[in-house]
Amino acid sequence: MRRHLSTVSKHVPSSGVYPLGFLVASTTAGLKKTAAPDMALVVSDRDCAGAAVFTRNAFAAAPVLVGREVIKTSGAAMRAVLVNAGCANACTGVQGIADTRTAIAKTAASLGLKSTGSTLMLSTGVIGVPLKMDRIEKGIDALSASVTKSSTASHEDWLAAATAIMTTDTFPKLRSKEFSVNGKVYRIAGWSKGAGMIHPNMATMLAGIFTDAAVSKPCLQAALSHAVERSFNAISVDGDTSTNDTLVVLANGAAGTKLIDDIKSSEFAQFQDNLTEFAAELAGLVVRDGEGATKFLDIQIENARTFEEGKAVATAIAKSPLVKTAMFGQDANWGRIVCAVGYSGVDIEPTKVNLWMESKNEIVHLFKDGAPHQVFDQADKDKAKRILAGEDIVIRVDLRLGKVKAQMFTCDLSFDYVKINIDYT
Amino acid sequence: MRRHLSTVSKHVPSSGVYPLGFLVASTTAGLKKTAAPDMALVVSDRDCAGAAVFTRNAFAAAPVLVGREVIKTSGAAMRAVLVNAGCANACTGVQGIADTRTAIAKTAASLGLKSTGSTLMLSTGVIGVPLKMDRIEKGIDALSASVTKSSTASHEDWLAAATAIMTTDTFPKLRSKEFSVNGKVYRIAGWSKGAGMIHPNMATMLAGIFTDAAVSKPCLQAALSHAVERSFNAISVDGDTSTNDTLVVLANGAAGTKLIDDIKSSEFAQFQDNLTEFAAELAGLVVRDGEGATKFLDIQIENARTFEEGKAVATAIAKSPLVKTAMFGQDANWGRIVCAVGYSGVDIEPTKVNLWMESKNEIVHLFKDGAPHQVFDQADKDKAKRILAGEDIVIRVDLRLGKVKAQMFTCDLSFDYVKINIDYT
Repeated sequence: MRRHLSTVSKHVPSSGVYPLGFLVASTTAGLKKTAAPDMALVVSDRDCAGAAVFTRNAFAAAPVLVGREVIKTSGAAMRAVLVNAGCANACTGVQGIADTRTAIAKTAASLGLKSTGSTLMLSTGVIGVPLKMDRIEKGIDALSASVTKSSTASHEDWLAAATAIMTTDTFPKLRSKEFSVNGKVYRIAGWSKGAGMIHPNMATMLAGIFTDAAVSKPCLQAALSHAVERSFNAISVDGDTSTNDTLVVLANGAAGTKLIDDIKSSEFAQFQDNLTEFAAELAGLVVRDGEGATKFLDIQIENARTFEEGKAVATAIAKSPLVKTAMFGQDANWGRIVCAVGYSGVDIEPTKVNLWMESKNEIVHLFKDGAPHQVFDQADKDKAKRILAGEDIVIRVDLRLGKVKAQMFTCDLSFDYVKINIDYT
Repeated sequence: MRRHLSTVSKHVPSSGVYPLGFLVASTTAGLKKTAAPDMALVVSDRDCAGAAVFTRNAFAAAPVLVGREVIKTSGAAMRAVLVNAGCANACTGVQGIADTRTAIAKTAASLGLKSTGSTLMLSTGVIGVPLKMDRIEKGIDALSASVTKSSTASHEDWLAAATAIMTTDTFPKLRSKEFSVNGKVYRIAGWSKGAGMIHPNMATMLAGIFTDAAVSKPCLQAALSHAVERSFNAISVDGDTSTNDTLVVLANGAAGTKLIDDIKSSEFAQFQDNLTEFAAELAGLVVRDGEGATKFLDIQIENARTFEEGKAVATAIAKSPLVKTAMFGQDANWGRIVCAVGYSGVDIEPTKVNLWMESKNEIVHLFKDGAPHQVFDQADKDKAKRILAGEDIVIRVDLRLGKVKAQMFTCDLSFDYVKINIDYT
């Protein structure tokens, strides 16, 4: 039923380099309609700094409501992240909150953790129905048993966890890499899911990032806030924000080095840059698996007055159904893009605006100083056609108002987006 | 290529009752690719009060830039509205502004008007290319000759004008009616166009409303501002705002009665209510002709704290691609609607929220006090199915925060929306 950007294997790694001190398990608890794996657990062998960003949706789900408390009270001594797919535990009232607490306490008990509040639970799936707690509890038993008997996590363990949290995602989203801060090497790994709708449905974006760097809780939260604005808050599939969206990062310090705890230090800046780049890569995978997506659109705004203004312009373009359908149709429709710039709410100067479309090898300057440009000659039309035939398209807009850059990642709007979302009952 | 809500004739009147003192003409100037009529002129036989609202898009087209001046300087003594389709005269720089001024001066000269600045010009069509002024000028000659030799405007004249301003609209949008203020009868007529994309394209919404009531300029502008918030600013097809959007209203006083010039009078309140209702009807026609639309969605928010908050909630629902595709799929997807309420930015109280879907004859209470309701029983499911099978669907949300109502009108998001907008070059 779904049209894919490319083959599944293209976006799924066959090996990885994973952070020290994290154990990973997944299991099939019977929460999905299919008999696919549906629960995952990542546990650190020591206390971690933990930071998270949660949905701002007023109908925040039970795991989000409880999660905010967990990060607040235990964010300096986190141990585990538990995830279930198949049930979002949203619009489930006080029962939903009690169920989340029960699952967290059960996890702590099974793992023999001292603190019962050092586990974050993430849920995704159907809303409006309660968690099947008997299955969740059996799942926790299986996950705990699995991590208790292992001493390290393999690539296969990480990939299985990324697979277990999928809903209508078409491929597991997993990345890992080494990075260095002042010459010292660390590891970072993470998974994400998103852009999937299930009945009665919402798209939930979940992501977990794990590193063996040693970072204080305030520094980790600051770096995450910076990173999320430039990664998960810089992607748009259809502009809807779910009740369950959560991004969590744990730093366990298992690499055994000096704590990064000064927000003004060069160590912090380096860590923040690496976290941002890594988060952007995970976020990009969500866009590439956007429902019905055939194009990956990189919207780059240059020379804005402020980051907020640049972001507002990028967002107007990224959310325009007219721009997104034009990209699906491979139509170099500069008019729709200019129009979105114009209604973004930012006080722009029309005669300063320039617009380009770019592929890896070619560039066409469609709009120059407020007027159409390179849109009339056949050679330019042919160039635009070649650029738009590709999977990766850069839309670059220069506002000439200041010196700040901003960026958004989105996908096109295709027949398959409609097909996937009409969801005949 | 397009799927229609219903037969064209259903939305097009076969007769009407038109305001006194207005003459109407249309012609074929050769601005469209097809040989269809493409220019229209409405002239009052005496000075009118004129008020207008224009797009806020920073790339406002030349006719908008000039139009703002015209209303400012001549709004108490307007005489005519000139419209062309086929060319939007947008992104055309100083030449575009000069062309608009030339067309306005030519119209005044041809009609023998004393003031050269008492004509508003509206343009819609292709952007980035200049007006073909030789054709525009010949068109103005033909229009002027036509109105000069007539003494009254027939239903056919009004319908022909509504047809000439169409771009990819599938039916002409014309309404007329009598209304009374303190027992005195007046007439009001108007046309609108919108939701049409033409290469290289934007959707432009234009509307003109004409009445033989006598209203002062400040009162007319105040009534229009009120009306537009509840009509043309309460519709959303895809959330994009064009460079040319304009709504103009002329009141010529040809009914020969006392001037409505006190904003606190009951006459003003009655006039404002009638104008609002009339504008909402014209705006509704734009939604019904929304690209690919198969459903007319009436989003009603009740018991908001303020009109602005209610409108924000209604807008979040009306713009959600997930809600709009669900409606196309006839899926009673309360989760997506609740989710949109939650991310609207309004400080709601989840446990107070109630949601209904309604047809003319049936109602289903899908969400009650923050939890799903009437969604589990087969009888309720069947009822929702019948409601969603109809063309007109009401989505009603009670916030229980205050006492204010707000409303939005939108259409569903169908395969045909994508088909129409991919616009293969």
